[in-house]
Amino acid sequence: MSLTDVTLKAKYPAKAHCRRVAKFLTDAGFSRDGVIYLEAQKTRMVEDDDQAQHFRQRRYFFYLSGCKLPDAYLTYNIPQDILTLFIPPVDPDSVIWSGLPESRDEALKKYDVDAVLYTNEVNAALAAYGPSKSATVYAIPEQVSEHITFLAFQAVEFAPLKTAIDECRVVKDSYEVALIRKANEISTLAHVEAVKAARNATNEQELYGAFVGTCISNGAHEQAYHSICASGTSCSTLHYVRNDQPLKDRLNILLDAGAEYECYCADITRTFPVSGTFTRESQTIYSIVDEMQASCFQMLRGGVLWEDVHENAHRVAIQGLKKAGILIGDEQEIFDKRVSVAFMPHGLGHYLGMDTHDTGGHANYDDPDQMFKYLRVRGAVPAGAVITVEPGIYFCDFILNPVLEDPELNRYIDKTVLDKYWTVGGVRIEDDVHILEDGYENLTNTPKL
Amino acid sequence: MSLTDVTLKAKYPAKAHCRRVAKFLTDAGFSRDGVIYLEAQKTRMVEDDDQAQHFRQRRYFFYLSGCKLPDAYLTYNIPQDILTLFIPPVDPDSVIWSGLPESRDEALKKYDVDAVLYTNEVNAALAAYGPSKSATVYAIPEQVSEHITFLAFQAVEFAPLKTAIDECRVVKDSYEVALIRKANEISTLAHVEAVKAARNATNEQELYGAFVGTCISNGAHEQAYHSICASGTSCSTLHYVRNDQPLKDRLNILLDAGAEYECYCADITRTFPVSGTFTRESQTIYSIVDEMQASCFQMLRGGVLWEDVHENAHRVAIQGLKKAGILIGDEQEIFDKRVSVAFMPHGLGHYLGMDTHDTGGHANYDDPDQMFKYLRVRGAVPAGAVITVEPGIYFCDFILNPVLEDPELNRYIDKTVLDKYWTVGGVRIEDDVHILEDGYENLTNTPKL
Repeated sequence: MSLTDVTLKAKYPAKAHCRRVAKFLTDAGFSRDGVIYLEAQKTRMVEDDDQAQHFRQRRYFFYLSGCKLPDAYLTYNIPQDILTLFIPPVDPDSVIWSGLPESRDEALKKYDVDAVLYTNEVNAALAAYGPSKSATVYAIPEQVSEHITFLAFQAVEFAPLKTAIDECRVVKDSYEVALIRKANEISTLAHVEAVKAARNATNEQELYGAFVGTCISNGAHEQAYHSICASGTSCSTLHYVRNDQPLKDRLNILLDAGAEYECYCADITRTFPVSGTFTRESQTIYSIVDEMQASCFQMLRGGVLWEDVHENAHRVAIQGLKKAGILIGDEQEIFDKRVSVAFMPHGLGHYLGMDTHDTGGHANYDDPDQMFKYLRVRGAVPAGAVITVEPGIYFCDFILNPVLEDPELNRYIDKTVLDKYWTVGGVRIEDDVHILEDGYENLTNTPKL
Repeated sequence: MSLTDVTLKAKYPAKAHCRRVAKFLTDAGFSRDGVIYLEAQKTRMVEDDDQAQHFRQRRYFFYLSGCKLPDAYLTYNIPQDILTLFIPPVDPDSVIWSGLPESRDEALKKYDVDAVLYTNEVNAALAAYGPSKSATVYAIPEQVSEHITFLAFQAVEFAPLKTAIDECRVVKDSYEVALIRKANEISTLAHVEAVKAARNATNEQELYGAFVGTCISNGAHEQAYHSICASGTSCSTLHYVRNDQPLKDRLNILLDAGAEYECYCADITRTFPVSGTFTRESQTIYSIVDEMQASCFQMLRGGVLWEDVHENAHRVAIQGLKKAGILIGDEQEIFDKRVSVAFMPHGLGHYLGMDTHDTGGHANYDDPDQMFKYLRVRGAVPAGAVITVEPGIYFCDFILNPVLEDPELNRYIDKTVLDKYWTVGGVRIEDDVHILEDGYENLTNTPKL
């Protein structure tokens, strides 16, 4: 059993998360005399059909319960430090079809909670909140069922809870890091199988199938996000989703794919040659992106400003593209005029956790500066955060053509050299990194070229 | 290229489906002077996240367009026989991330429609409906966007369209049969890979992964439904979903899994021994279920009453279970007292098409007769329908215990013999069958034991 698996033998630390969120609320001046109230995601049917929709647990609920059951509820009594989980009662009709659901005793053993009741007891439990008559209930807007009554509480606070959880989620505890590491371990097995499949594959979907199948076979039944399995010039389409094109005559494959494990995500990208050997141009670009990542890694530590790391990626890209002869002219001018943004239009990385683009990043999509508009994390990255480091260089005609037509900018690009690079498509290398006080730990062990 | 693939080289017959639905409406007495109006499924975001939800095209829309694009619209002008598809216009911001969407010209070539416009032209097109001032627009309740105006029409009919399409969908044309056959061909490859995986597997999920991965690798990126990959006594849980239990010490595997191909479904079940060889008890049950299916096949032709076929399955089951010594007493009494329902609690089969449980079956879940309560098709099955034939025998304690405790019923069961069979779990064999005037055609070529 791996170290990760040993860590994961313990319960998901729901109670610690409750305390952390409660502290965030009281530090922000909100009353300690109160209850946090959350609902799990509901079972929903597919429209016009008798099957349930794909279920994805509500992340706020999972963070404070570790429970993946649909239609459950929880309350956390802050002053008494009591976490109660409410699970759906046994439905005899459903037992015939689906077998016995988790019992109260099983749930109490499985989850880090103080009590387990049935969901038809939620209102009674809320009404029985006792410590005072001036208590507050904290809930998330539009995530409270109509039949729920908060009559026992003097105040209902809908404003701070979501933000509180969003912010608490940024710094991961060791259990969460282990879940992300486990998602990475399974995703690595799947990336390796996809590369193997590429040897004889004739279509992108053979890699896609190998990836998804291997994740499932190894215990990750859900994907963190829709895989990007692109080949040839499609590697330059950042959110490519088709994954169904023939590989014939295509140079490279870009595989951006990650498993979800117990609601936690991996997010990994590798780029490799279809033939097994990069062309000279592909190797040149791959080496630059590799150097971008290596250089950014060296900057990582608790408190680092993410804009600085992102800028560094652009500076390394500019140096590399100049050396390759694609860019020409003064490095600082190229940087200041945002020419490199046309080669790396996306941000360097994002927080990673229960969401692939995890909470607390404070992106500013209205930033007029193109270099930072799509950067999903702004400001200082605290020790304990998990963040992706995913530099890339792309040759996308939709993005580069406007630059090539702009007389202010096109003098920095050697079109003749650039024309040799279109078939490279795009290269991205992405790892998931745990930020430490004095450095970082790479959670992604997927082989690189 | 297979015959199926040759058939599928043509366009999906959307126009023929429009005409068929229009005829159904006018045959029912509704006005021919009108327009059928439908909307595609919308892009929806995952709650609290920046990713889109899994997209599943609305079946009504696909039936009349063959188009899988989200956020599209269609109108079918009945008297003028003009089918117009409205596709989303190009969003320059999205092109950078997702590449160019399907153009109007590409859509016109790809789909069996008369015209392609952009979605911002829907209201103008509706307003321009010209033939008369007394025209009717046919639409589906709760599937009309708020910004859509039907002012050009004297009447808006929300009642008949959904039923009309539901009923038209029962009889499949050759193109639809080819799609179901293609879904079956891919699912067969995946079933075969799952059986291969079983040889060295230690957990149900290894078969599940092999199945899903093989479907994707062969062009079916979606599953028709959540696979049931059950082992041991879990084979008796009809809607088993976990697919994650160790295979150690378990006798049999029940794999109920089917791919979706271009919105059409396969639905296939095979049961086989983990070790490669059935125990005597498992072989006995497997042979009975096999005989149930073979016997039901012989009854299939256009117009057959599905209740008769379902009853036949029960009669064969009773004979087999008597021979095995599990049931004792008079066959007719056992049948009349519904004792066999405890061994096969579900219906013999359901229509199959764009939905796994396809439309037009007229199930009566309020039927007080337990034998027919869960039968998803009632009455005559027309030639051209595609239906599953899926007999099963299960040893489920939740279902059998009440019978064993009932003095009126338990005298028909030899408990001592029954006790040897619990570890069999359950056996189901399921194929997808195309009903012909004088017989049937089995669309499922998955190997059987």
